[in-house]
Amino acid sequence: MDAARRANGGDSQFVLTIVGDNAVAELIRHDPDLENADIGAELPWSIARSKTKEFFSEFLSTFILLCFGEGTVAQNVLSGSGDTINIGFGWGIGVMMGIYVGGKSGAHMNPAVTLACCIFRGFKWKKLPIYVLAQVLGAMSATAVVYLNYKTAIDIHEGGPDIRTIPGISKTGTAGIYSTYAQPFLSSGQQFFSEFLATALLIFCLFALLDHRNLGINRQLLPLGMFFVIFGIAVAFGWETGFAINPARDFGPRAVASMLGYSVDIWTVHHNYAWVPIIAPLIGGSFGALMYDIFIYTGESPINTPWFGLRKPKQTGWSSSQV
Amino acid sequence: MDAARRANGGDSQFVLTIVGDNAVAELIRHDPDLENADIGAELPWSIARSKTKEFFSEFLSTFILLCFGEGTVAQNVLSGSGDTINIGFGWGIGVMMGIYVGGKSGAHMNPAVTLACCIFRGFKWKKLPIYVLAQVLGAMSATAVVYLNYKTAIDIHEGGPDIRTIPGISKTGTAGIYSTYAQPFLSSGQQFFSEFLATALLIFCLFALLDHRNLGINRQLLPLGMFFVIFGIAVAFGWETGFAINPARDFGPRAVASMLGYSVDIWTVHHNYAWVPIIAPLIGGSFGALMYDIFIYTGESPINTPWFGLRKPKQTGWSSSQV
Amino acid sequence: MDAARRANGGDSQFVLTIVGDNAVAELIRHDPDLENADIGAELPWSIARSKTKEFFSEFLSTFILLCFGEGTVAQNVLSGSGDTINIGFGWGIGVMMGIYVGGKSGAHMNPAVTLACCIFRGFKWKKLPIYVLAQVLGAMSATAVVYLNYKTAIDIHEGGPDIRTIPGISKTGTAGIYSTYAQPFLSSGQQFFSEFLATALLIFCLFALLDHRNLGINRQLLPLGMFFVIFGIAVAFGWETGFAINPARDFGPRAVASMLGYSVDIWTVHHNYAWVPIIAPLIGGSFGALMYDIFIYTGESPINTPWFGLRKPKQTGWSSSQV
Amino acid sequence: MDAARRANGGDSQFVLTIVGDNAVAELIRHDPDLENADIGAELPWSIARSKTKEFFSEFLSTFILLCFGEGTVAQNVLSGSGDTINIGFGWGIGVMMGIYVGGKSGAHMNPAVTLACCIFRGFKWKKLPIYVLAQVLGAMSATAVVYLNYKTAIDIHEGGPDIRTIPGISKTGTAGIYSTYAQPFLSSGQQFFSEFLATALLIFCLFALLDHRNLGINRQLLPLGMFFVIFGIAVAFGWETGFAINPARDFGPRAVASMLGYSVDIWTVHHNYAWVPIIAPLIGGSFGALMYDIFIYTGESPINTPWFGLRKPKQTGWSSSQV
Repeated sequence: MDAARRANGGDSQFVLTIVGDNAVAELIRHDPDLENADIGAELPWSIARSKTKEFFSEFLSTFILLCFGEGTVAQNVLSGSGDTINIGFGWGIGVMMGIYVGGKSGAHMNPAVTLACCIFRGFKWKKLPIYVLAQVLGAMSATAVVYLNYKTAIDIHEGGPDIRTIPGISKTGTAGIYSTYAQPFLSSGQQFFSEFLATALLIFCLFALLDHRNLGINRQLLPLGMFFVIFGIAVAFGWETGFAINPARDFGPRAVASMLGYSVDIWTVHHNYAWVPIIAPLIGGSFGALMYDIFIYTGESPINTPWFGLRKPKQTGWSSSQV
Repeated sequence: MDAARRANGGDSQFVLTIVGDNAVAELIRHDPDLENADIGAELPWSIARSKTKEFFSEFLSTFILLCFGEGTVAQNVLSGSGDTINIGFGWGIGVMMGIYVGGKSGAHMNPAVTLACCIFRGFKWKKLPIYVLAQVLGAMSATAVVYLNYKTAIDIHEGGPDIRTIPGISKTGTAGIYSTYAQPFLSSGQQFFSEFLATALLIFCLFALLDHRNLGINRQLLPLGMFFVIFGIAVAFGWETGFAINPARDFGPRAVASMLGYSVDIWTVHHNYAWVPIIAPLIGGSFGALMYDIFIYTGESPINTPWFGLRKPKQTGWSSSQV
Repeated sequence: MDAARRANGGDSQFVLTIVGDNAVAELIRHDPDLENADIGAELPWSIARSKTKEFFSEFLSTFILLCFGEGTVAQNVLSGSGDTINIGFGWGIGVMMGIYVGGKSGAHMNPAVTLACCIFRGFKWKKLPIYVLAQVLGAMSATAVVYLNYKTAIDIHEGGPDIRTIPGISKTGTAGIYSTYAQPFLSSGQQFFSEFLATALLIFCLFALLDHRNLGINRQLLPLGMFFVIFGIAVAFGWETGFAINPARDFGPRAVASMLGYSVDIWTVHHNYAWVPIIAPLIGGSFGALMYDIFIYTGESPINTPWFGLRKPKQTGWSSSQV
Repeated sequence: MDAARRANGGDSQFVLTIVGDNAVAELIRHDPDLENADIGAELPWSIARSKTKEFFSEFLSTFILLCFGEGTVAQNVLSGSGDTINIGFGWGIGVMMGIYVGGKSGAHMNPAVTLACCIFRGFKWKKLPIYVLAQVLGAMSATAVVYLNYKTAIDIHEGGPDIRTIPGISKTGTAGIYSTYAQPFLSSGQQFFSEFLATALLIFCLFALLDHRNLGINRQLLPLGMFFVIFGIAVAFGWETGFAINPARDFGPRAVASMLGYSVDIWTVHHNYAWVPIIAPLIGGSFGALMYDIFIYTGESPINTPWFGLRKPKQTGWSSSQV
């Protein structure tokens, strides 16, 4: 997600930002007269787009993620075929394509990623609310589109256009298309641990992939690497709570489901599970980042400052370039 | 599909066309005395082939796409095993190999791609009919080959060499091997939306992959990237209408099926569904391209001109090099 | 399989052989003092190994191919679980790893590949028998190893250590672990066409991947590309005849099966099917190569000579460097 | 695992260590002022971390491997769905991500790998116990985490929190989540041969991937290559003994299972199978390495010395840089 640096400031134009096998090419690409010069940059729409590009980049990358992901769950539920492998491919490809789409904002697509970057990678805190808003709205929009696409099939599956039910409560429940629902036997603690662990693994692996002091993955292979991280979480930790691992991916669609006629139980079922995929990924993701920085990372991080970031470090020395 | 530039004009020989990690190698490859010089270029057949190379490139890449794709559907239907994952691999690999085969024409393999390139990427309109013709003929030829390969198995599955039936109408229907058929419960509007959405995602993701002002995928990884796009559409939006997302892939084989003894119902079944995979991908694909250009793309596009392309822009400034 | 050039002659040490993104690195690797200098090259064993390296390279790459491939079929048959996807992964990974193992001989692993290279890519005819012998022996050795590994499970599956039967004839047949057997309903013509077509696709795609005048795949991605070709053939054309597409892969194990106590029916069952996977891949593979060269290839090929290779061309101009 | 060289000594800073397409980039990365300089290297924690980095690197990469791998087995067993493909993805992704995490120690994750590197690639013997300890502890820790995550589901599956049983003995056995258990019909010899063969293939393929005198895989693609090796072993040789192919991966979790209330039978069941996945991988792995070095490898290896390493060679000439 080195593209973030390009997006974040023109002052990086002549810096060799990319490690890995893109280094040579990057010198060429950074020629502002050739590649980076926006076409028609003086036009009103181009100016407006330039000012909102991070918002739309997050919005659209999350939109693409949710289209592929929710579409896959919908197809599995409604067609009565398909299994965890389909789910792994659907969400994995969603993340992969989301990264390609969202290069101009770093393609976080997930408040847990944005938060971990704010705490551990010097990502600007003032961007956090904009990113989260774009992510939630992108997830909500995709939910509406997937719902429109599968509306008739949902009507038939549920038994009528006015029937909208929840899996675990109803055998024909379709609410699981949009958001995650926990296995009924799980305590709140087990729900929390499952989402905490899966998100910690997500961010730990993401930070490893991005760490060019470690093996490091090059920018061209990062989307494929994240595909495998998501797939791995789906087959290893997807069954208990549906691996939300992303507050925006879960909350946004649940809010839309409320508007679409699903009962208020979607918020309260299974010991108010709806709040777990909001809180647990935020804490778990940052915990995973903390573990990575404590035991492996030797780059710029609050961990690698005299007071482990508990006293205010000099912000000047940081950059968001690693993410 | 940067190969299109090489194919389209000798005047690009000394231009550094490739972004990404191929930049250095490309300088070498463009040495006209070493790599690009056709062997035996003065021979009659080489001259003839050179003049028709775009046609045959589209023809053969679409042929390869359909061989793998239709072959996979045939194997699933006739062997009675296999599921969506097989379908995703079959069509995904078909697109992947089609791109490798069709480098000299850009490997569109799909009128919806060609149309979007004409509207948004300066691809020459006069090439559109040639490309579409090659695509349709390639799809038809592959259908004949797949039919020959599976003829005996089709006879046995249908119950006799003179019986050829349609899925949804007959339990032993095999017409779905060649073209797509919608789920019976879908209205025309839902059929249209499903193909529209899937093709919009296809082109949106394709344009993101090709956009080197965004993250961008390098030429070596593009076929793999498109494999995942197709796979994602198969698992997320493949069930309702069979994700034709390509007029040539659907119309050509349906026309061949007509000749092979399938009844005229293949054109009229499910509210004349046969026209949906022709119209919806063309509109949906260009809509996806439009969305990408409006919200993300800063390169050469009618969107980035003073009148959004609604008044005639200066054509000189465009090139087909991005596709 | 550019490694073939390195293997074939020291005179290529200072030639820039690799196209694609390895070009720069290759200049370094070709420094004979650094990388290519064999360690202990003056020792007796190193000298012996150097003289037989192409034989052992083909032997071991085919051995690895068959270990993964036959092992997967055995696991599917004996465990009673697993489907076409397992088969696609098993053989696909076998080819992939075989390429990595057999870099010093070009990793043909298949007489149909070697023959097509002899006819169309100037591969030396005198190497053909050595290559084929190594391939057949490699396949036979792997069969023995896989048999040893699964012997007890085969005994249990068949019903006793003295019972060895053939699928299609016996419900507990295990002969399909080693070699392919056709669906019983296929005529000899349909058997032939299925193997012909699948091998034509194999070589057509292989030649496209290797063609750096087309899109071309770089050496690092070639094994992955071939994985997908094999996987695609498995899901699209694997059911009717088990996609032998390789005389050595089918004949060698069948010969070993004879020795292991399977009846002579393994040679005669289904209209003497055993000869189809020997003859059809050789003809089909070269037909696929012919089609590629006629319609797409502009490099060195008999097709690109005045008499299409039907009169003897100047051999001097050719090289085996493309394969 | 070229990262090992960087980790092992500062004296390699100005050596061009990497073959393949990273060569140019590597020159840049090795600038000690830019990339490799640890941030806050003078701080107490950074100094402590620097001294223990190989231990934590092995610990954490094995931890990640086991989280994904055991998590996948747990999900398959407890959810009652999923098959070999899930297992292949789970362990394959575990190895892939483990390599990214463990770049600073070479990411062996497996005593069989470390042993083969000691014998054949000049890896320092004195590091062997540290590596093995880190691997076993990492595997044990991951087992505890996976157990915590699935505790309630295990209770339900077994029938109560005090019931912990073994597959093959009990229908609801869950001990297979942690360690491997052999098919009941296998003799000790067949158990041994299965683990021996699978590990020999593992190391043979690994050494082929790393051999830049052969085709060689570049560092960026190595994790993907190993994913496929693991996947291939899972589908071809995974059924009989569960493809432990790694003493740490099997022993560590079995020891934890002992502490968690599983009976002592986990060590004695199936003819004391528990010792097979400790002994067989060590012998089989080194046998695979031996075969590779005898028949293919021309680099620094005891095989390429006057006495095949049976007399003490000059250690000076060796390096651990290839692994």
